[in-house]
Parts: sequence; structure tokens; C-alpha cells
Amino acid sequence: MLLSDTRTNAGPDNIASFTKMNVVAPGDRVIAMMSAGNLAVTQAVVARVIDGLGLDPNEPFDTLMTVKSMYEAAQLIGNAVSRVYTSATSGPNAQNFMFDASIIVAGQIAGDKMKMFHIYAAGNFIEATVDTPFFQIGEAKYGKPILDRVARYDTPLDGAVKLALISMDSTLRSNFSVGLPADLLIYRRDSQEIAAYERIAEDDPYFKDIRTRWSEALREAYRDLPAPPWLS
Amino acid sequence: MLLSDTRTNAGPDNIASFTKMNVVAPGDRVIAMMSAGNLAVTQAVVARVIDGLGLDPNEPFDTLMTVKSMYEAAQLIGNAVSRVYTSATSGPNAQNFMFDASIIVAGQIAGDKMKMFHIYAAGNFIEATVDTPFFQIGEAKYGKPILDRVARYDTPLDGAVKLALISMDSTLRSNFSVGLPADLLIYRRDSQEIAAYERIAEDDPYFKDIRTRWSEALREAYRDLPAPPWLS
Repeated sequence: MLLSDTRTNAGPDNIASFTKMNVVAPGDRVIAMMSAGNLAVTQAVVARVIDGLGLDPNEPFDTLMTVKSMYEAAQLIGNAVSRVYTSATSGPNAQNFMFDASIIVAGQIAGDKMKMFHIYAAGNFIEATVDTPFFQIGEAKYGKPILDRVARYDTPLDGAVKLALISMDSTLRSNFSVGLPADLLIYRRDSQEIAAYERIAEDDPYFKDIRTRWSEALREAYRDLPAPPWLS
Repeated sequence: MLLSDTRTNAGPDNIASFTKMNVVAPGDRVIAMMSAGNLAVTQAVVARVIDGLGLDPNEPFDTLMTVKSMYEAAQLIGNAVSRVYTSATSGPNAQNFMFDASIIVAGQIAGDKMKMFHIYAAGNFIEATVDTPFFQIGEAKYGKPILDRVARYDTPLDGAVKLALISMDSTLRSNFSVGLPADLLIYRRDSQEIAAYERIAEDDPYFKDIRTRWSEALREAYRDLPAPPWLS
């Protein structure tokens, strides 16, 4: 399952909402990308790997619709990131800007295993494993402690959804550069179809309910802790 | 109350333990400093403001022992940070390094109010208020959500100690650049003496107990959340 917020900002007076999740699901595959960092960079990468935009239409090229494995999907995205980097930092378009892009790609192509990769700004990538079953990109630290405590390779799907939402809740409360609505994608292994794709806004009844319950449970847990022995 | 870890690192193969808390308590005042950032910078600042080291002993100078108010203490530290910056980045000692220092100073001088300031690398500073009753420096994000949820201006002292310890626990679990032992200082308003100054190691029975309880409470709260409605 994947969860992303939609907040982007170019300074506190320039805040907008853009989805950071892009999915292809033509029948033989479900591949979803989530991105963080410079929106111009990540949108260029998405355009390249989903629609082949920016390429010579007379030359054959792969997209997420045509790659044969998830590993190839990660390579395709990594190469697109490198290409955008080269274009943005050399030649007539050279810009001396902070090149910043992180992408998570996850999914399954019929005949291949379900996989998830984290692609760095340099275009290289790592794969999720039994030891590290989740990835975060962007404003990741606020929501990491609860994942570190509870998320395991064998965490069931409904547990993963709960964890992702309470992790996002902590981030929403502590950092205004992260904002609702959020996009939630659920995929079941070997199904090759999207199980759920939800847009979660402030008034989503389930998210509201678990935010309230989680907040109350934390306050109660805090109150129930024994008093420190150093105050007499 | 103040809490600091003791981990410093110059890369993952160069980890050491240094206290980041320094206190003066001569009878008419308790002033404590906590520091984050480049250790050479912050130690130079501490040496300057507590012992007057690096100054001309023939000229009169203030230290934390002689300043007349907490505001003057913050100014003294801010000026010391600026002085170390100038010395490190100009003249024969010029170094092109990342100048990074954050300092919290808190305490009370008899006749003045209890106050807390956050001093930045630029030497300027802000004061804690009713709206923002706590400060964090260094690796702050992991431990911030629980403080944002619960810490208030009127949180009692024992609650503040519990909160600081569970906030530190989240950080310890998620980031190896933060490590035990921790230094905990408790001061009661208008007492002009230290109420408690504890070094908390892995085997501290109270900290072990609340870490276990907190972890169990979070897991239980997570388990008790209702299942998401999108998985049928």
C-alpha cells in the first residue's frame, strides 16, 4: 500500500496541491510512482516514463506500460531522473538550482514478483527487503518512529494502512509543508488490479476517526506512565 | 526541565560521548545551556561564556556567573557564537566549514523571571512563550510529534519529564546519531537551586520502564484502531 500527501510549496506564500502519486494499471500490471522534491523535476520524470514525453517519437522507447519487470521500471525511472538532471544543469538550460528528487516505485507485472524501489536524485536505487519493508520520501522524520516501532515485513495489509495513516497524521500535525488531501493506493499481490485508490480529505470519516482515537490513546498512554522518581 | 543526549559524531566511524549540557548554580542563579551542532564551535562558546576563556584577562568581561538577567545571558551567548564564527571563517584561521551551532539557555537569576532562549548560529535568539513553551535543537523531528500533541505551557513538571523522555525515546530508536546516556536537569521556579541532575543510561530503571510501557501502549493503540473500510 502507498500513501502520499498533495502539498507542494515554493515558499510559505506559494502553496499548492498536486498529486504525488501516478499509477498505470492496463491489466497485466499495476505500477505506481510517488515522488518528492522539486515538482518540475518529478513531473518531467513522470511525463517521460508514463507517456514518453520529451523523447524522439521516431525512436523506440520504453515506458512503464512496456517494461518487462519492476527492475526495468526502476531503471527506466532512474535514467529519466539522470536525463532531467543533465538537461537542467548543462547546456543552454543550465540552472544552478538544488536538484532534489526522490521517487518510490512499487507494483507488479504479471509473471514478475511484487517489488518496491526507492530511486534517488542520482538515478540509482535500492529495493525494499524483508529487513526494511517500507520506504519514506520527502518530509519523512516526523512519521518514522511509529513505523520503526511497528511496521514489519509480515504486517497485514489492514495494519499497514492504519500505520501509514497514523504516520501521516503525525507529520501533518508537525509540519505545514505536508497537507491533505492524501492519496491512498492499495494493491493485493498477484491481482494485477488496483484494490482501492482513495482520496482522503479532512472530512474523511475513517481518517477523522482514527486520528481522534490515536490522539486520545497517546494522551492516555502518556497520563498512565508512572511519575519520574526524581521529583520529591 | 532540560534533557540532552551525549552522542557526537564526525562520521559513522567516529562516534563519541560528550555532555551537551552545562550548568552554573552558584547560589543566586541556575543557568543551564544545551548545545547542538559542531562540537568545536559549541565547546568554544561554553568555554567563553562560563570561564571567560579566549578573552583578554586584563579587560573586564561578563560570564554566566556575572550577567544580571537571563536576557543578558542570551546576549552573551549570542555574541560568543558570533565571535567564534568570525574567528573560524576569517583571518589566518579561516576555514570553509559548515558553521552549525544551536544553543538553548534556560534558568533564573534571583530577582529575574525564569526564562528560556533558543540561540541560532547567527547569534540572534528567540524566547519561549506561552504559545511555544518548548524548544528542541539538533535531531529534533523524530521526537517533535508527541511534544506538539501534548506539551502545553501549563503541563506540570512531572508530565514534562515524561514527555521529554518519550520524545527522546522515539529519536533514539530512529536515528543512531542520537545516543544515551542522556542528561536530565530539573529546576523549580524561584528556587535558585538544581532540583535534580541525573545521568540516564540504558540501564536506568525508570527510563527502561517507561520505554517499555510506551512501546506497549503504542502497539496496543495501533491494534485497537478499527480496520480501514477500503479492504473488503
